[in-house]
Amino acid sequence: MILQQALAQSHEYAKKVVREGDTVIDATCGNGHDTLFLAGLVGDSGKVYAFDIQKEALGITRKRLLENGMLHRCFLIPDGHQNMHRYVNQPVKLVLFNLGYRPGGDHSICTRGETTIKAVETALNLLVVHGLIVLVIYHGGDTGFEERDYLLKALPDLNPKKAAVMMTSFINLPNNPPILVCIEKLG
Amino acid sequence: MILQQALAQSHEYAKKVVREGDTVIDATCGNGHDTLFLAGLVGDSGKVYAFDIQKEALGITRKRLLENGMLHRCFLIPDGHQNMHRYVNQPVKLVLFNLGYRPGGDHSICTRGETTIKAVETALNLLVVHGLIVLVIYHGGDTGFEERDYLLKALPDLNPKKAAVMMTSFINLPNNPPILVCIEKLG
Repeated sequence: MILQQALAQSHEYAKKVVREGDTVIDATCGNGHDTLFLAGLVGDSGKVYAFDIQKEALGITRKRLLENGMLHRCFLIPDGHQNMHRYVNQPVKLVLFNLGYRPGGDHSICTRGETTIKAVETALNLLVVHGLIVLVIYHGGDTGFEERDYLLKALPDLNPKKAAVMMTSFINLPNNPPILVCIEKLG
Repeated sequence: MILQQALAQSHEYAKKVVREGDTVIDATCGNGHDTLFLAGLVGDSGKVYAFDIQKEALGITRKRLLENGMLHRCFLIPDGHQNMHRYVNQPVKLVLFNLGYRPGGDHSICTRGETTIKAVETALNLLVVHGLIVLVIYHGGDTGFEERDYLLKALPDLNPKKAAVMMTSFINLPNNPPILVCIEKLG
């Protein structure tokens, strides 16, 4: 397809704003694919803060970063993303969320709308003006519908003077393709 | 803003698929801004078919194309876009719709959901596989809500084996920013 799915689009948006030397956050470390991708974007002078509550996820990510020579660009933090402000005290260019459960992991351990929204609000405080929050919302199978519904109800309430919230979704495809939400900090 | 409004995004998608020598359709000629943009993309070996039911719109467009030396790349057709199959008999790479009324024109003369959907179905037949239909849906002020609602009800019914329908919109901004819909022909 020419039209890209949400995950590929999230990387396109990351590339639009992230430059060498930037500080960025991977709010949902998971198996570390995005952490590695972001570490590649920020270069040796940048930093990626990656959060996950699952030690196993951070272990897999550490291994992936080590194998690709990028561990020194990353802080791997065993805490929920709603607490990111406790660890990051500098302006951030991008915060990436891959919502849902960790592929290959326990489906009952997944992100929740309530904490995700808290993390989005915290992320907005850390972002530079015109920095981006990118959320890929997975929904389907046995999980994700509740969080999707929570977010699609809460995100339209974000103050339009502070942030622009853009949503992209496939509206006729079966199997619940993921939804992309991009939030740009305006002021 | 880093996040682009629908009109700018429609041009990005056009650039993704249109190459020199291609045949494309401007389904809503209007004041000819998009016709000129498309004529620039297809080059001297390509063709733009531009439709409008308003003679004044075609006159303004003709002048714009002439001033920019691109009239020879375009057919300006005084008919509704739902009849495009009567004029175009070759494979098409892109069909662009800028819905609503013509800026500066009579607001009561505007596109309608029923004919737009007919035109979308006709356009799907003319498109090459992986060709795109791009719709910018204007709604707000005194018009456009009815067509928007009609389309957002009808487009999710497009056969997912034939086309993927992607919608992008700002979900927290005031003043009804336009909505972008991209349809890729799949088979």
